[in-house]
Amino acid sequence: MIRFDSDYTEGCHPRVLAALTETNMEQTPGYGTDEHCERARRMIRAACGAPDADVHFLVGGTQTNTAVIASVLRPTEGVLCPETGHINCHETGAIESTGHKVLALPHENGKISAQQLRAEVERLRGDECYEHIVQPGMVYISQPTEFGTLYSKTELTELFAVCREFELPLFIDGARLGYALATDSDLTLCDYAQLCDVFYIGGTKVGLLFGEAVVVCNAALKKDFRNMMKQRGGLLAKGRLLGVQFETMFEDGLYLECGRVAVEAASQIRRALLKKKLPLAFDSPTNQLFVELTRKQQAALAENFALGKWDVTGGDTDVLRICTSWATTQEQTDALIAAIRAL
Amino acid sequence: MIRFDSDYTEGCHPRVLAALTETNMEQTPGYGTDEHCERARRMIRAACGAPDADVHFLVGGTQTNTAVIASVLRPTEGVLCPETGHINCHETGAIESTGHKVLALPHENGKISAQQLRAEVERLRGDECYEHIVQPGMVYISQPTEFGTLYSKTELTELFAVCREFELPLFIDGARLGYALATDSDLTLCDYAQLCDVFYIGGTKVGLLFGEAVVVCNAALKKDFRNMMKQRGGLLAKGRLLGVQFETMFEDGLYLECGRVAVEAASQIRRALLKKKLPLAFDSPTNQLFVELTRKQQAALAENFALGKWDVTGGDTDVLRICTSWATTQEQTDALIAAIRAL
Amino acid sequence: MIRFDSDYTEGCHPRVLAALTETNMEQTPGYGTDEHCERARRMIRAACGAPDADVHFLVGGTQTNTAVIASVLRPTEGVLCPETGHINCHETGAIESTGHKVLALPHENGKISAQQLRAEVERLRGDECYEHIVQPGMVYISQPTEFGTLYSKTELTELFAVCREFELPLFIDGARLGYALATDSDLTLCDYAQLCDVFYIGGTKVGLLFGEAVVVCNAALKKDFRNMMKQRGGLLAKGRLLGVQFETMFEDGLYLECGRVAVEAASQIRRALLKKKLPLAFDSPTNQLFVELTRKQQAALAENFALGKWDVTGGDTDVLRICTSWATTQEQTDALIAAIRAL
Amino acid sequence: MIRFDSDYTEGCHPRVLAALTETNMEQTPGYGTDEHCERARRMIRAACGAPDADVHFLVGGTQTNTAVIASVLRPTEGVLCPETGHINCHETGAIESTGHKVLALPHENGKISAQQLRAEVERLRGDECYEHIVQPGMVYISQPTEFGTLYSKTELTELFAVCREFELPLFIDGARLGYALATDSDLTLCDYAQLCDVFYIGGTKVGLLFGEAVVVCNAALKKDFRNMMKQRGGLLAKGRLLGVQFETMFEDGLYLECGRVAVEAASQIRRALLKKKLPLAFDSPTNQLFVELTRKQQAALAENFALGKWDVTGGDTDVLRICTSWATTQEQTDALIAAIRAL
Repeated sequence: MIRFDSDYTEGCHPRVLAALTETNMEQTPGYGTDEHCERARRMIRAACGAPDADVHFLVGGTQTNTAVIASVLRPTEGVLCPETGHINCHETGAIESTGHKVLALPHENGKISAQQLRAEVERLRGDECYEHIVQPGMVYISQPTEFGTLYSKTELTELFAVCREFELPLFIDGARLGYALATDSDLTLCDYAQLCDVFYIGGTKVGLLFGEAVVVCNAALKKDFRNMMKQRGGLLAKGRLLGVQFETMFEDGLYLECGRVAVEAASQIRRALLKKKLPLAFDSPTNQLFVELTRKQQAALAENFALGKWDVTGGDTDVLRICTSWATTQEQTDALIAAIRAL
Repeated sequence: MIRFDSDYTEGCHPRVLAALTETNMEQTPGYGTDEHCERARRMIRAACGAPDADVHFLVGGTQTNTAVIASVLRPTEGVLCPETGHINCHETGAIESTGHKVLALPHENGKISAQQLRAEVERLRGDECYEHIVQPGMVYISQPTEFGTLYSKTELTELFAVCREFELPLFIDGARLGYALATDSDLTLCDYAQLCDVFYIGGTKVGLLFGEAVVVCNAALKKDFRNMMKQRGGLLAKGRLLGVQFETMFEDGLYLECGRVAVEAASQIRRALLKKKLPLAFDSPTNQLFVELTRKQQAALAENFALGKWDVTGGDTDVLRICTSWATTQEQTDALIAAIRAL
Repeated sequence: MIRFDSDYTEGCHPRVLAALTETNMEQTPGYGTDEHCERARRMIRAACGAPDADVHFLVGGTQTNTAVIASVLRPTEGVLCPETGHINCHETGAIESTGHKVLALPHENGKISAQQLRAEVERLRGDECYEHIVQPGMVYISQPTEFGTLYSKTELTELFAVCREFELPLFIDGARLGYALATDSDLTLCDYAQLCDVFYIGGTKVGLLFGEAVVVCNAALKKDFRNMMKQRGGLLAKGRLLGVQFETMFEDGLYLECGRVAVEAASQIRRALLKKKLPLAFDSPTNQLFVELTRKQQAALAENFALGKWDVTGGDTDVLRICTSWATTQEQTDALIAAIRAL
Repeated sequence: MIRFDSDYTEGCHPRVLAALTETNMEQTPGYGTDEHCERARRMIRAACGAPDADVHFLVGGTQTNTAVIASVLRPTEGVLCPETGHINCHETGAIESTGHKVLALPHENGKISAQQLRAEVERLRGDECYEHIVQPGMVYISQPTEFGTLYSKTELTELFAVCREFELPLFIDGARLGYALATDSDLTLCDYAQLCDVFYIGGTKVGLLFGEAVVVCNAALKKDFRNMMKQRGGLLAKGRLLGVQFETMFEDGLYLECGRVAVEAASQIRRALLKKKLPLAFDSPTNQLFVELTRKQQAALAENFALGKWDVTGGDTDVLRICTSWATTQEQTDALIAAIRAL
C-alpha cells in the first residue's frame, strides 16, 4: 500500500532528522529562547527580506491559526475567509472557541477576490444594524488554497490593497507554502512578506516532523504574541526542536527543494490523469490533485494506493484527492501512474 | 410621524403599567425569588400544560438565546439554525462569544425542514473528518420566523421527531410568540411545550416593557440555569418586575389579546397591500409584512410613516418591513391604509 | 416584616415611575437612539463636567462590568481588583466567561492602595516567566466598596496616578455611587470623571427600576462599545426606558436626593448600633452597615426585620448587613432603631 | 556551563531518538490513528491496569490541562486547585481563556488536603448566594507538585474519596509523574488509575522530545475528547510521533528508568546540600530541589551552573531550583556537588 492521501504520512526529511540527532544532547534554555531558534529567525527574516519582522515557531496549523486570529481581533469582530477555508471547515470550531465568528465568503477555486471582499465589507459596514452584526476585523486566506490552487501576484496585490483600504489585517495560512514556492508562481517569500500583515511558513507538511513559522510583518500586530502562544498551548517547552528544524530547512535551499520534489511528482501524475481524460475538479499547480473517479476506478486504485476521499457525491463518481509530498519517490509516482494508465 | 418600523416602539400595555405602579413600593427579595415571579411561573406552567417545566425570566432576547444555547452545548458543538436566524445575523456574534459555531442552513421563508435537518446531521456525523468539524449539539428555530412566517403543527412535529432521533435538543425562540398564537395557527402553548425541549415566550415585543419567559420542558436541560443567567448578566436584581409583568399578561388572556390586536392590524394592512398589487416578499400571517416598494413609493410613505428598511437592493425597489404591535391603534392602521391606497 | 437586607427591595422612585407612565405610549426608535437617551446623556455629561465622554445605558451591574472589562482587555490580560470585588466574588465567573483572569489583591476595608498596586504590577511585569503569567491589563475598584467604605480623593488620586504610570485603565464600579455622593466625601461626579478612565453611575440600587450609566472618559476606550453591549445582551430594545429614568434622576438633583435619604437613615441606625455597643465589622459612611450580632440578637430582630447574612462564622456571632435605600422611610428606620435598643 | 535549571534542557532519550529514526520513512495515517499509537495505548492501559481507559496523546502540558479541564466543566463551573498549581500560575490564563475560573486553595508544600477540600466545597455549595458564585466542577492537583513534593497513597485516597462524595472529577497533572514513580512512594501507575478520574503521564520532562499521555479512567469523561483536542490545537498531524515515543518508553521499563536516573542524581545533590547545611525550602523526594542561597553563593555557582531562580526575596537570600532529569550524567552531578562543597 502506497499512501497518496496526505502530505503528512512520513516523519521528516533526513537532513532534518540528522540535525535533530546531532543536537539531541545539547543543553539549551526552553520556550524558543535558544540559539537555534535565534538563528532560524534570522534566516527566515533574511529569506523574507523582512529584517524587522517577528518570527515565532508553533507546532501545528490549528494552533497557529487560532493564536494569530485571536491576537488580532477585537471581541466583537469576526474573520472573513473563503467558505472553504480550513478555519471554517476543519478545525472543530477553534476560532469560534476564542469567541469570534468566521465570516465565510463564497469561493471560486478556493479563492476570494478583491472585488468580492470590497463588496462584502461595504455591505457589512454600511448596514443600518451595523452594531447588531459581526463586523470584520481581519481577512484569512491560504496559499496554496485547500484545493491546491494559487493566488497570482496580481490577485494578492489587489486583495491586500482592499485590506489596507479598510484597515483589515491580511493573514495568509501557508501550511503548504513550500509547495506554492516550488511552482512557477510569480510570488516569492519576499513578496508574501510585502503583501500581507502576517503569514506562516508551513513545516509540518513540507519536510519537518512538525512546526510552522509565523512571520509578523505588521508591527502593530506584534504585541504580546508569545503570551498568546503560551495561553493557547503553543509555546513548546523544548522550543529548540523547532529552531533546529527550521534552520536546517533554510540552509542550502532545503525548503524549496522539498517543495520541488512534491510538485514534480504531482505534475507527472497530473499529466497521466489528463492523458487518461479523467476530469480534474480543480486545476492545481501544486502538490494536491482532485480527480473525479468512478467507483470501479476507485476500487482498482485502492488495491495498492491510499487516496483521500474528498467529496462524496450521491452518484457513481466521487472526487478523490491525490497528495504528493517532499517524501514522494519516483518509484511511488511511477507505480501510481502505471495504475492510472491501467484504469 | 407614525412608527410601523418595529414592535418595540412603545412602552407597555396599560394594564402592565398599572400592575407595576400598584406594586411599586412593595418590598420583595431579589433575583426572581419573590411571590410575583412564583405566581407568574405557576400561571405559565398551567398555560403550557407543563407542570414540571422550569420557568425563568430574562430581560431580552439576545441574553436569553445566549444563556440557553451556552447552557446546552458541549464546548466543541455548534447550533444548527436557518441562515436567517436572529442568532446568526443580528446578535453581534453573541453565540460565538460563548465559544460555539452557528451552523447555518439554507432557509425557505425563514424556515428549515425536517428532511433538510436529517440530511445535514447525517452529513456532519458521517464525515470522515468527524472530529475535525463542528458537530451539531442542538437546533434553534424561531416562531414566528424573522419573516413573520410560521411552522405548522405538522412541520414542527416532524422537525422535533428528527431532533429526538438524533438527540439534538430543539430550542424555539419565541420573541414574537404572542403574534403566532393570535393567528389561526393550529399550535397552542401546550403544543409548543410538547414539541420542543426549551422555548421562550417573548414579552418585550408583545406588550411588556421588557422580559422573556424561558420554559425548560426537558428535565435534562434544567441544571444550573440560574447560575448561567447570573453569569451572563441575565438575573435581574429586581426580578419581581418580570414576575409582575408576566402575571399580568397571563391573567384574563391579556397575552393573547395583545397578539390579536397586532395581527388584526397587520391583516388589514396586508389586504390593502394586496389590493394595490404591491408584491409581498413573504406571505406572513403574523404582525410583520415585507413589501416591495419603489423609491417613489417609499418616499411618499416616508412623509408620515416610519417603516423598516429590510433588504436594500441595487435596483429601483427595496423590501420594507411594516410591523404592527399590541399598541397599534385603528387610527394608525387606517392612516397607513389610506396612504397605501394613495400610492 | 420590614426589609433592610438590600437596596433593591422596592421598585423605583415615584418621580421615575411618573415619567415612565407619562411617556409610556410615545413612539421612539429602539436601542438607545431616542431623544430621552440623548437628553439623559447630555445631562450626565454636564453633571460630570465631561463634555466629550461617551455615555451608555445598560440594565444591570454584572452586564456592565462584563461589557466594560471585556472591551478593554487584550486576550491574555487580566483585571486587577480587591479580592472582595464583586466581579471576583458574586458574578458567577462572568469575567472569566469572557476569557480573562481576575487578579485578586488582598483588601483593607474593601480597598486597595496605590502602593500595593504598584508593588503587584512591578512583581508581575518583572517576573522571569513574564509570558507565562497573566499580565494585568486594567484595574477594577468599586466606590462605595462592597463594605460601604469609600476611597478618599487623595487615595483615588494616588491610585489613578499609578494606573496612568503603568498604562492600566482604571474602571470604577459605581453600582451604589449615589450613596457615596451623598456622604461628606470630598469626591464629586466631576472628580470621578477626572480620576478614572471609565466608571458607571448605578441606578438599580439608587432609585431606578433598573439601569446603570457607563461614562467612558478615556477616548481610547470608546471603540465599538455599542457592539459589545449588543453581543453581551446589554443593548435594551426599548432603550428609552433607561433614558427616561436617567433624565428624571438628573433633573433637580433627584439622584443626590435618593442618596441622601439612604445615608441619613443609615446614619441614624449606625448611631443606635454604636450606642448599643454592637461591634461594626467595617466603618461605613454610606448606606450599608455591617454589624456583629449574637444568634439571640439575630433571632430577636428577625421577628420583624429582614437583614442580610454576610459572614457566617462558626461561633456564636455572625456579621449581618443592614441596608438602607432611597425608599427607606423614617417609620421603618425608627422601628429598626427601637428594636436595636430593645436587644 | 551545565544546566540544572529545568528538566527540558536536552532532546530525548537515545532509545526514543533511535525509534523515531527507525520509523521515520514509514507511511502512516495521521492524527493518532496509526499502529504505533494503538500499540502505545495498549501498553499504557496494561501498565495502568486499566483495560477500559481511553488514552490520548498531546504535545504539551498547557494544552493537555486546558483540553481536559474545558472538557469536564459546565460553563459556570470552576476548577479547584492549590494556589501554586501550574494552571493558576504559569499558563497565562489558559483555563480562564476557556471561560472558567480557577478556584485557588491555600497550599501546604504544594498540596491540598481532603479535609480542606471538603470544607471549601461545603462553604461554596452552602452559600446563600450559591448561584452568584462560581461553583466547583472538578479538582486539579499535580503529582509531583510544583515543589517536587508528593501526595502519599493515604492522602490521595482521602482526597479522591471527598471528590467522589461531592461528584467532583479529580484530575492529576503528571507532567513529572515519572519522577514520582521512581521514588519510594507507595503509589504505582495502577494506583493512579484507581485514585482519580483522569490523569496524564508526562513525557516532555521525562525523556521524550515532547508528549503527554492522557488516561481517562472515568467513562463519563470520555465523550468527544478527540474533538476537543482538535479544537484546542492538540491533535498532532503526525500523531505517530507520539505513539512511537510512548511505545518506546513503555518497553522494558524505560519510563521508570528515566525517572530513576533523575531521582538518584537529585538525591545525591540533596545530601550535599544538607551536609552543607543549606536550607531546603521544601523537602522534595523527586527531581526538583529548592534551596536557599545567599547572593554570594549564587554567584559562585553561577560560574559553571545554570540554576532556576524560584523565589526572589527582598533580602540577601533567594530560593533557587535545582532540577535533574533523565539526561543528568554522573559527571554533571559530581561537578555540582563539588561546587556545593566549595561554597
